Amino acid sequence: MTSYSESLSTIIDASNHMLDELLHYKKPHNLYIPLNYMLSNKGKQIRGVFALLSYQMFCGDDFNDFKDIVLAIEALHNFTLIHDDIMDNAHLRRGKSTINKKWSNNQAILSGDLLLIQSYKHLLNSKFSSLEMYNEFNHVAVQICEGQQLDLDFQFKKEIKREDYFSMIELKTAALIQLSLSIPLYSNHLSKQPLKTDLSVNHNRKIMKKIGLSLGKLFQIQDDYLDLYGKKSAIGKTVGGDILEKKKTFLYAEACRLSTVQQKKDLISIYHSEDSNKIKLVRELYMQLNMKNITLTQIKKLYLEVFSLISKLKIADHKKENLIEFIESVLNRNF
Amino acid sequence: MTSYSESLSTIIDASNHMLDELLHYKKPHNLYIPLNYMLSNKGKQIRGVFALLSYQMFCGDDFNDFKDIVLAIEALHNFTLIHDDIMDNAHLRRGKSTINKKWSNNQAILSGDLLLIQSYKHLLNSKFSSLEMYNEFNHVAVQICEGQQLDLDFQFKKEIKREDYFSMIELKTAALIQLSLSIPLYSNHLSKQPLKTDLSVNHNRKIMKKIGLSLGKLFQIQDDYLDLYGKKSAIGKTVGGDILEKKKTFLYAEACRLSTVQQKKDLISIYHSEDSNKIKLVRELYMQLNMKNITLTQIKKLYLEVFSLISKLKIADHKKENLIEFIESVLNRNF
Repeated sequence: MTSYSESLSTIIDASNHMLDELLHYKKPHNLYIPLNYMLSNKGKQIRGVFALLSYQMFCGDDFNDFKDIVLAIEALHNFTLIHDDIMDNAHLRRGKSTINKKWSNNQAILSGDLLLIQSYKHLLNSKFSSLEMYNEFNHVAVQICEGQQLDLDFQFKKEIKREDYFSMIELKTAALIQLSLSIPLYSNHLSKQPLKTDLSVNHNRKIMKKIGLSLGKLFQIQDDYLDLYGKKSAIGKTVGGDILEKKKTFLYAEACRLSTVQQKKDLISIYHSEDSNKIKLVRELYMQLNMKNITLTQIKKLYLEVFSLISKLKIADHKKENLIEFIESVLNRNF
Repeated sequence: MTSYSESLSTIIDASNHMLDELLHYKKPHNLYIPLNYMLSNKGKQIRGVFALLSYQMFCGDDFNDFKDIVLAIEALHNFTLIHDDIMDNAHLRRGKSTINKKWSNNQAILSGDLLLIQSYKHLLNSKFSSLEMYNEFNHVAVQICEGQQLDLDFQFKKEIKREDYFSMIELKTAALIQLSLSIPLYSNHLSKQPLKTDLSVNHNRKIMKKIGLSLGKLFQIQDDYLDLYGKKSAIGKTVGGDILEKKKTFLYAEACRLSTVQQKKDLISIYHSEDSNKIKLVRELYMQLNMKNITLTQIKKLYLEVFSLISKLKIADHKKENLIEFIESVLNRNF
């Protein structure tokens, strides 16, 4: 168990309690049971906690006012997970069977649909919203679909370029982290506060979005790394699952770029085979190419970017402490 | 080709033009091409036209003001079709291959997701919206999922009751027709018009929702009827597709209710078999039970309900003419 400072614990507890409101005990039970099953297994709620941290930094401590926005973001995120798990034919999520495996693909389609609707329901219920916030939310929801499309398209490509990989994760993963970190700064309420000028709001919003972009990439590359080099108990998924599913990860894109003609030929061939030994074979090739260290170096680079950006926020340093502590805790998982 | 009065043609043309705005020529092309393919094949746009007709009856003639609401409704409807086609394993929709067949289930999941997001994007863009309208829209979107769940559950039931059938179609089909017909009456703009008292708005909203309920049931039962007794060219789907897919239709529910013990046993057995001759066998059983006439009688009953309700609207009779003409034209298709 990670132990948090009291101040950060308060925020994480708040997020935890809020998420219970996504559970519904209504009829038809067959619709709500799979969704409750998925949502009860909460995970780290990174996006909800980010939104709350940002709210605390720029707006105030009355988290309850911001609840519907947190729920909108977490519902949107969990909707994407449910549908991605169908498309990836994934069996495990957060250490438990996915809805598509425990019930069926059809059930998972419907669970995801309902959750996307719930996401908008909360967004529209929030007294904290603004037209600008709605536009940003919609824009990000579309970006996530576009990123998922690129990811699907990668299944049919033998080789992907580094920049294609980054285009995909910026849309599929980073866009929502950017939204989570910047969304309180789209609220109408902000400009009413006498000490906040529009200028500083715009500056901080821009920086928070940049932090989200770097962090989103960092998290995704870390996910790619942990899928192969993490522990099953910690990641809640099959180790090497990305290789089995022929996912085009950071490791794969970089390995293609850095390999000799022969190594690349071998990698592409093994990666797209159904060889029962393929995880081991790919791991060996990655070792020859030093992929573990190359990936850790990239993670380190993004990490430094994030902290350089945090220093640029126009806000008292003590107000950044919870955000920094939370980022560190997420990054230190499973290493 | 149906020929419409000039007045109704104007509305249908308006809806037609509006729907083009759901098409996007953006990257990644693989995401937008399947959606454009589906949306270019417009169908009758019953829900969009209903919303425009209601807008004309209660608000005014400047349809452009109401465009985003029409698009929100049509996008919501088409989203449900795309995902239902996956769940039903349907091959044809409006006479063309479904997205799931022409591309893949994964592509159809993503196309539907994007369209649901577009639906909310338009709802949130409309200057015509109100909190009450948002709540109603969300409520109906949830109802559609609940109805789809009941429909999925029916796949695993050998027999369904008449009231279960009606619960399902009220949620899955009628709720959105109700919304289409009543949504202009949820607008904030209405109460600002001097001649409209809140009292008449509430009365008309209630009646329009009742009309939608009866019409929604009528359309679904007509669909069930036409699936077996319509022409392939007119319905754009396989004749008897519901029987092949073991769908629990009005005809099936009523046949179960009205059959002898032996007939019911035969019906259930044939209906759930993979017998290549099953459409013919079910048709024969339905003939013994007079299902064709029983279904037509039910359609007639609902038809009379609709027109009795229309007479109760507190609005000048000439303002009802386009609605009546459109309902007649939709009901007369393919008979």
